[in-house]
Amino acid sequence: MTSSRDALSRFHAVIPAGGVGSRLWPLSRADAPKFLHDLSGSGHSLLRNTWDRLVPLAGESRIMVVTGRAHRSAVESQLPHLADSNIVLEAEPRDSTVAICLAAAILERREPDVIIGSFAADHIIGRLPLFEAAVHEAILVADAGYIATIGIKPTGPSTGFGYIRPGAGLGVEGAPSGRAVEAFVEKPDLATARAYVHDGYLWNASMFISRADVLLAQLGETKPQLLAQLRELAAAWDDQTTRGPAVDRLWPALEKVALDYSVAEPAAAAGRVAVVPGLFDWDDVGDFASLAKVNSGGRKTDLAILGEHARVLADASSGIVVSQTNRVISLIGVKDIVVVDTPDALLVTTTENAQRVKSVVDALKLTGGGNVL
Amino acid sequence: MTSSRDALSRFHAVIPAGGVGSRLWPLSRADAPKFLHDLSGSGHSLLRNTWDRLVPLAGESRIMVVTGRAHRSAVESQLPHLADSNIVLEAEPRDSTVAICLAAAILERREPDVIIGSFAADHIIGRLPLFEAAVHEAILVADAGYIATIGIKPTGPSTGFGYIRPGAGLGVEGAPSGRAVEAFVEKPDLATARAYVHDGYLWNASMFISRADVLLAQLGETKPQLLAQLRELAAAWDDQTTRGPAVDRLWPALEKVALDYSVAEPAAAAGRVAVVPGLFDWDDVGDFASLAKVNSGGRKTDLAILGEHARVLADASSGIVVSQTNRVISLIGVKDIVVVDTPDALLVTTTENAQRVKSVVDALKLTGGGNVL
Repeated sequence: MTSSRDALSRFHAVIPAGGVGSRLWPLSRADAPKFLHDLSGSGHSLLRNTWDRLVPLAGESRIMVVTGRAHRSAVESQLPHLADSNIVLEAEPRDSTVAICLAAAILERREPDVIIGSFAADHIIGRLPLFEAAVHEAILVADAGYIATIGIKPTGPSTGFGYIRPGAGLGVEGAPSGRAVEAFVEKPDLATARAYVHDGYLWNASMFISRADVLLAQLGETKPQLLAQLRELAAAWDDQTTRGPAVDRLWPALEKVALDYSVAEPAAAAGRVAVVPGLFDWDDVGDFASLAKVNSGGRKTDLAILGEHARVLADASSGIVVSQTNRVISLIGVKDIVVVDTPDALLVTTTENAQRVKSVVDALKLTGGGNVL
Repeated sequence: MTSSRDALSRFHAVIPAGGVGSRLWPLSRADAPKFLHDLSGSGHSLLRNTWDRLVPLAGESRIMVVTGRAHRSAVESQLPHLADSNIVLEAEPRDSTVAICLAAAILERREPDVIIGSFAADHIIGRLPLFEAAVHEAILVADAGYIATIGIKPTGPSTGFGYIRPGAGLGVEGAPSGRAVEAFVEKPDLATARAYVHDGYLWNASMFISRADVLLAQLGETKPQLLAQLRELAAAWDDQTTRGPAVDRLWPALEKVALDYSVAEPAAAAGRVAVVPGLFDWDDVGDFASLAKVNSGGRKTDLAILGEHARVLADASSGIVVSQTNRVISLIGVKDIVVVDTPDALLVTTTENAQRVKSVVDALKLTGGGNVL
């Protein structure tokens, strides 16, 4: 078991805290993105919940947050034990490859055999012992040289998530459920999703656990220039006199590309990705339909209410109300409704139309309503 | 035609401006009742529109407004040409018999042969020449001794209004369309409403035109004590030293009763009511479904938007938005929706549920939410 303890002690968590979450507008917006909100009724932001569930796995000193400069003070006030050296501020958003691989490159310079695990700042996870068990297995699989992911066992044929097709078992010691990944597949239609669930596919939750050197080597195969830029940034990072000039010089040209495309899919094609099935509850809270489901215990006839000072009077209504004001909100006879009440913007739609919220954000950008985005 | 001119010159309009309009909450409320709002998109309040359409009939000096003490300054600012002697302030609301018959009693003391016409402050009327023509005929019918009403020719089998069953023609000179009223009937179900429309019934718009002495004599037959109290108030009214003590002594005991019950129905049963059909456009804007219809030109697929500063982004939505804030309001895929956005209260319902809005107001009274009523 020595190797197991070794691997666990080399684990360092990374939390990319970036996306605005346009489908959750007007709750989530540029200056108050999704991860800063309490979307689970826990009393804490999604970011803080993410931190809290990683502390038992990594320890407070081994969790890095990658976020935008604008969110520095919000992140620091949410996470008072986050070390200065563990906050990476992005000059401009550059998608998930930059966020995760820059963190990997910085951490690898500090600790060459580090194993990193990246976990989105804005997902909701329940049944934490099962989450911890899956991450433990994934760390051991990563130590064996794989890029490991955790695939969520589907609760139904969702069309809102990508899927992972698992292959043969790996036989990694201490990680009995680890399996090879044959492919990542895109969000399916309903019939395809049903077939996927029947065939044992898992949801892709974008959790990646890997030795930093393995991850970066994989990136180098598809994006060698980007890797070189990130290594140059990492080399300059831990010295305040060199970091700023390096960022100013290199950041503008960094390629925007999702880690799925730059690393995960090519690695899977080369047989280098493993998956550990996750049996815990998970949701990416991608839109208000998802938020309603998560907060109503899955009962479609219920009305979920989010907001510390919510004053809601509802009659024969279901769906979700998000209240960020002190106003009385009355609903009468509206089913599957979505009402999001913020000081400067109000959204009224239905759970069925939840995916279309992004189009409003796009329209507001075009029509000069950007001050409420 | 001398007698015709005489009757017209003896006409004095009365506008009872009382009801809160609970079905239009949270737009209409105790301190900002329905009649003070611009519900027709005209740029003026319903009260002001009512005044403006009565001026050609009565003249500015012959329009009396009966309203609550709390609304005095709002009414005076809406109607700068309203004479001091033509505003009657109610100590407490006492329903329509007190409002209209007190006005009649006050005006009769000033001018014994006055013909009064009462017109609600919160209805919407279109095609004004037809309205004026109907009122002209009704004045002549009233001068002949009838209590005249104007019955609206139905545009469909509404279940939201009471109906008038017309009888034989009256043969009053200058009022060829005047007919006897056989009965007033309550709001019907849909099948009954269809039969009423087929049989030529008219909508009861609660417009009454009558000689003041005739109206008061009719009241005396059913409510002699109330008549005596109103005459005593009227006798004290025009002297500032006597009005206050009389109001303090008499007002608390005044019976609350609708004019329909105290005067119109008994008079109809005795053959003393006449009706002039009104061919103008009319709506009592009783709820948000009615408000939506009035403001969308009757097209059910349209979204009506009310509010001077409304900023509405709507996609695949119909119904009505009332905006009293500067907030951006986004609607996506909501049909027949009702959204009423005010600084301290928000209502979301559908036109189908519009009549149930009153139940929210009742619930708020019970649950201590009275500060938003």
